[in-house]
Amino acid sequence: MAALSMIVFSGDYDRSMAAFTIANGAAGEGDKVSMFFTFWGLALLRAGNGPGPGGLQSLFKLMLPIGPDRLRLSRLNFLGLGPIMLRRLLGRKGGRDLSALIGMAIERGVNFVACRASMELLGLSREELLPAAHLRVGDVHEFLRAAKEADICLFI
Amino acid sequence: MAALSMIVFSGDYDRSMAAFTIANGAAGEGDKVSMFFTFWGLALLRAGNGPGPGGLQSLFKLMLPIGPDRLRLSRLNFLGLGPIMLRRLLGRKGGRDLSALIGMAIERGVNFVACRASMELLGLSREELLPAAHLRVGDVHEFLRAAKEADICLFI
Amino acid sequence: MAALSMIVFSGDYDRSMAAFTIANGAAGEGDKVSMFFTFWGLALLRAGNGPGPGGLQSLFKLMLPIGPDRLRLSRLNFLGLGPIMLRRLLGRKGGRDLSALIGMAIERGVNFVACRASMELLGLSREELLPAAHLRVGDVHEFLRAAKEADICLFI
Repeated sequence: MAALSMIVFSGDYDRSMAAFTIANGAAGEGDKVSMFFTFWGLALLRAGNGPGPGGLQSLFKLMLPIGPDRLRLSRLNFLGLGPIMLRRLLGRKGGRDLSALIGMAIERGVNFVACRASMELLGLSREELLPAAHLRVGDVHEFLRAAKEADICLFI
Repeated sequence: MAALSMIVFSGDYDRSMAAFTIANGAAGEGDKVSMFFTFWGLALLRAGNGPGPGGLQSLFKLMLPIGPDRLRLSRLNFLGLGPIMLRRLLGRKGGRDLSALIGMAIERGVNFVACRASMELLGLSREELLPAAHLRVGDVHEFLRAAKEADICLFI
Repeated sequence: MAALSMIVFSGDYDRSMAAFTIANGAAGEGDKVSMFFTFWGLALLRAGNGPGPGGLQSLFKLMLPIGPDRLRLSRLNFLGLGPIMLRRLLGRKGGRDLSALIGMAIERGVNFVACRASMELLGLSREELLPAAHLRVGDVHEFLRAAKEADICLFI
């Protein structure tokens, strides 16, 4: 059994699909997988919207998408049309979209860690994130602990 | 002898140059190098254009550049002028452009793997990719096999 | 004691913050940390401006920001307003901005290596970079040496 660690930073739809495809592939091989979500990557874990923290924080929070279906492509985004077309194409080809890939990762026991510093910066509370049992809040040392144990570590 | 594994995701001219510079440096030291091309990274391996798959697929395929000389810069692209200026500057300085770096990687026996799922999504066939002997088509498990053996693994 | 190696490629304000947060966290745990700055990442190390090299080189050099406070965000940049708002928010929350994170990395003995090929391409001299004792100029083999020793290696 190997171990894999990832930092999900970008929050782009396509890069996140790559992250979860790798995570699910490894978890399917029986590997231990840990994903650390920071900055824009926190968008993937948002399940709802709590009260605005006010001021500048509210502005950043407002700009952070809620959940995977609102993410943009890293290119060919076309003001949001790109991800919609990609999801449609995935549907026709029998592929999984990002939302389904995240669900699969939860089923396969992939560990999610939400970056505490990013959450505080944006004014996000734990209640606004996915209710997944495998999701907890942690700091950079939590990431480093998983990364040092890992055979593969990726920044995405 | 060490082993190095890379995922070439972005398909940006500059990021791809960094990927191949590292790959060639390691291969030159006698290391075993494997590069997995997925999503926009497949553009680097395109050598020609087959028939359009039709519909939405054709649209994405149409937008994916054919070969390294059509790639954009991750910044200062200036509608395509940036990469042209960069290539000209490289020429004057005696540096290698991306196309030359790819040729060197092939000569040095770097293994190329094209992501099967991305190819199917875009409607790309093996015949449309480089005829290199070291290029084959594989899935995420092929990547994981190389990555688990690797001393260095990078997502680019 | 573990070892950590990073390639700082992007030169985005937010991605660079993530890089230095990880570097400082690891150095704080007593790990050996090495950061290799290439392409746009060299902007972080610029401390001043030497004479323009002339021609195309001058153009690229002109476009490369001088120091961390001029970097853009990878998204929500809003023509430079995004980083200013982020720094203000960090100030209010008692967080460290990128400039402070770089200072902390220098204090903690993180090794900086500036990519020689990128410097030559842009016409940057050593004198235009930070006067830090832990900063030296090196090539891809210097990166590979650190990366092969490292337990964690990230491309950022």
